Amino acid sequence: MDLGIRGRSAILLASSRGLGRACAESLAREGVHVVINGRTEADVLRTCDELHDAYGVTATPVVGDATTTEVHDALLGASPEPDIVLLNGEGPAPRAFTDIDAPMWADTLQRTMVSPLLFVQRVIGGMQQRQFGRIVAISSAMVKSPNPFMSMSHGPRLGLTGVLKGLSKSVIADNVTINTLLPERFDTGRQQQMAELVMALRKISYDEARAEQVASIKAGRLGRPEEFGDTFAFVCSAQAGYMSGQSIQLDGGSYEGVF
Amino acid sequence: MDLGIRGRSAILLASSRGLGRACAESLAREGVHVVINGRTEADVLRTCDELHDAYGVTATPVVGDATTTEVHDALLGASPEPDIVLLNGEGPAPRAFTDIDAPMWADTLQRTMVSPLLFVQRVIGGMQQRQFGRIVAISSAMVKSPNPFMSMSHGPRLGLTGVLKGLSKSVIADNVTINTLLPERFDTGRQQQMAELVMALRKISYDEARAEQVASIKAGRLGRPEEFGDTFAFVCSAQAGYMSGQSIQLDGGSYEGVF
Amino acid sequence: MDLGIRGRSAILLASSRGLGRACAESLAREGVHVVINGRTEADVLRTCDELHDAYGVTATPVVGDATTTEVHDALLGASPEPDIVLLNGEGPAPRAFTDIDAPMWADTLQRTMVSPLLFVQRVIGGMQQRQFGRIVAISSAMVKSPNPFMSMSHGPRLGLTGVLKGLSKSVIADNVTINTLLPERFDTGRQQQMAELVMALRKISYDEARAEQVASIKAGRLGRPEEFGDTFAFVCSAQAGYMSGQSIQLDGGSYEGVF
Amino acid sequence: MDLGIRGRSAILLASSRGLGRACAESLAREGVHVVINGRTEADVLRTCDELHDAYGVTATPVVGDATTTEVHDALLGASPEPDIVLLNGEGPAPRAFTDIDAPMWADTLQRTMVSPLLFVQRVIGGMQQRQFGRIVAISSAMVKSPNPFMSMSHGPRLGLTGVLKGLSKSVIADNVTINTLLPERFDTGRQQQMAELVMALRKISYDEARAEQVASIKAGRLGRPEEFGDTFAFVCSAQAGYMSGQSIQLDGGSYEGVF
Repeated sequence: MDLGIRGRSAILLASSRGLGRACAESLAREGVHVVINGRTEADVLRTCDELHDAYGVTATPVVGDATTTEVHDALLGASPEPDIVLLNGEGPAPRAFTDIDAPMWADTLQRTMVSPLLFVQRVIGGMQQRQFGRIVAISSAMVKSPNPFMSMSHGPRLGLTGVLKGLSKSVIADNVTINTLLPERFDTGRQQQMAELVMALRKISYDEARAEQVASIKAGRLGRPEEFGDTFAFVCSAQAGYMSGQSIQLDGGSYEGVF
Repeated sequence: MDLGIRGRSAILLASSRGLGRACAESLAREGVHVVINGRTEADVLRTCDELHDAYGVTATPVVGDATTTEVHDALLGASPEPDIVLLNGEGPAPRAFTDIDAPMWADTLQRTMVSPLLFVQRVIGGMQQRQFGRIVAISSAMVKSPNPFMSMSHGPRLGLTGVLKGLSKSVIADNVTINTLLPERFDTGRQQQMAELVMALRKISYDEARAEQVASIKAGRLGRPEEFGDTFAFVCSAQAGYMSGQSIQLDGGSYEGVF
Repeated sequence: MDLGIRGRSAILLASSRGLGRACAESLAREGVHVVINGRTEADVLRTCDELHDAYGVTATPVVGDATTTEVHDALLGASPEPDIVLLNGEGPAPRAFTDIDAPMWADTLQRTMVSPLLFVQRVIGGMQQRQFGRIVAISSAMVKSPNPFMSMSHGPRLGLTGVLKGLSKSVIADNVTINTLLPERFDTGRQQQMAELVMALRKISYDEARAEQVASIKAGRLGRPEEFGDTFAFVCSAQAGYMSGQSIQLDGGSYEGVF
Repeated sequence: MDLGIRGRSAILLASSRGLGRACAESLAREGVHVVINGRTEADVLRTCDELHDAYGVTATPVVGDATTTEVHDALLGASPEPDIVLLNGEGPAPRAFTDIDAPMWADTLQRTMVSPLLFVQRVIGGMQQRQFGRIVAISSAMVKSPNPFMSMSHGPRLGLTGVLKGLSKSVIADNVTINTLLPERFDTGRQQQMAELVMALRKISYDEARAEQVASIKAGRLGRPEEFGDTFAFVCSAQAGYMSGQSIQLDGGSYEGVF
């Protein structure tokens, strides 16, 4: 299937590893020039090299924390008129609700909700003028099934989802779509971290921790990053221009609710 | 993007025109053998010829009303082990709630909800055994935004969505996904019929009726059938196997709700 | 709290036992005249006697299956201009999806979805003319969390919910509200039946079966019928006239989803 | 109906006017001792006097901005073991998405989302220990229908709703419920402000602005504050203890979505 985006340009926040990298790879394979971002220089450079070598696209590295204005500046310096933007970032660690103090709230809200919105402010007008834009946020399945130990994750992410949904209504007439992908338990470093956390907390083995992760997914397996990346690429396609404001769960069929 | 389904086989109910045909075309283009169904023989045969000629796949015609057991038999005769099934059918005409009598309810429920479920019963076990299945229902955006004049449409369709969602939970472990697509105002014969209905009812011109249709869509245009078909094809892809139980709105960003 | 409905009249389908009876009692306590219905004459008569004796309201018995036209006639004969209607009925037994044949679907749809809608058709116009109406359907928490073994329950109930939601939009301007209550595991005969079913299927004791029921509820207990009845009464109150089209879960806080 | 909360104590944030005051009045009428809060001393004192005189309950004034730690301290000083807490506060003014800068986001998030959560942290454990608690947040119908001009309202409110939903799952076993009420267009000072804003922006008359407000509500009228207050009181009742994690729309039946 031709996604109709060859030659377009994308900025992908937090794309040197994990789901972000998978998204970058799927776009690059379709001929999209990508700006790769991450905090570890070696990861960012290696990703750029690999994508350029494999697919021949321009892959521009921007090293740094994508929740800062400086990195936003650098990203837009590298690609001033992006057609596609991936909003992504590291999720916070689990923490009991009563242990979250005001500075922690302020920090997680700034990083997970405000910072992506400030970046969207800087690209949305140009996308409207150029009559093409695809903004996709990686959120979490938990925004629809909040877990009491992940308040710092689903709180800001729900806020982000809501603001993006509202915004989506006012830009779709200019062929700018805004959608959210809600992953649960993809086989990335994040799940390994979570397994290690559970091993330490509950004195169980790595295999036991992984088995619990798998057991929590109705599909009986973790998701593969390339499944995520290709879904992202489809949502960015030319022919996905009539679909906006959607929150699509990629969770191995695990969500209980009908909608 | 390679959807990983070349050589697979699909049964598409009500696929000789409109959105169903667009779905068939997108699958055929990806190398999927298709069974085409419709009530008008000429349409069915022409679609089969066109898809075979354009894409080299086997395209088998089954003429008849897909809500009947006889046609179910014929469809499964033509493709006994389908990998992909499209559930589709004509929607009922608008009617005021108080004017719907018991036989009308029974008829619309049989055609729109029970009949597709009976067909699913006949294919689901085989899909599970063969460890691959993609079932997609074309529903309507109205199932999430019920309209008092379309009770006979959204009532049965919501019931269908709910049963399929429940079922999806028990088959995803066998790599069988079940999803629903919710279109609103695609540029097919259906919208022309609706425009003509409105012209007659309200004594307005065709251009006025079409302008109202466009005005009801936040994207400022009707959807293109090929946009729908390609979304369907992606949902049927190998790499969409971690996504199930989703109801995806293809409505030009028009739905008001956050979820 | 004065609910502002003293002297009003209500028809309550399937109200001689369980949640339906609890609803009748809460209304009677507020001074509402009630029509009590059930299939077992002794239950219906005893309920009428008890409510009349305790609260001094008129309690009129109508014995018979509330899914039939004959009983609809009798209910409206007993109370031609009802202000309040409770839609209620026995749910079907669990059954695997692939074991449900066409006649079973037709029967459960007629009983659980079509029949209540036909009754609503007969009362809605009068409620609009009299500028007061409260229609409440008892559904099931499963309509928002479909379970693959309860397709015959949640399928028709979702259809019913959708049709009532659409209808609610066109009657609220006449002070007619339509809402749905979604119970899960109230301590009625229904839960005892379910426990016995599980005992027989899985060879466990009654206490074990009940313990499983309790464990499935986040509140750590079953609901009390009078909690349900009072919520119903509030939804029927004069001051609930600005709330319509809502589906309220009474499930001990068990639903996972944010909305 | 006896709500079973006579003699209990409640802290109501922002309760000297509008919907908050209506909530306080409905509780006081049921015999609940109330702590009244607002920024204008005269309003707070008058409300306390009126509620005490009318209903004989203790009504304690706490003047100040309820989004500050100092006022939280004062509220808990006035009622160290509250059984009921109303989370309420002034909503932000409308503002175009692209005009919201980082300090505005930080401020609205602190006031509308973080501050209520910090207050909940201080009361939740005691409620669990005492085996009774009712926490209710006044949010906005917009959290389910985001409007691009109200991002600063629905963003934080959605985040708050999500965190409270997650938390609700872990406290219901101790008879602590957490629910959210979603009003739209009640006849309070807020709607008068909004009307005046629209008058100034669009050069229309007050009557025209009010007519537009009414036209946006399917009920054909604005909500009455006492309707809101009584719904709140019911949600705080003893018999509402099996209902938690719900978001109930009080919007004149206006929400389009089925759920």
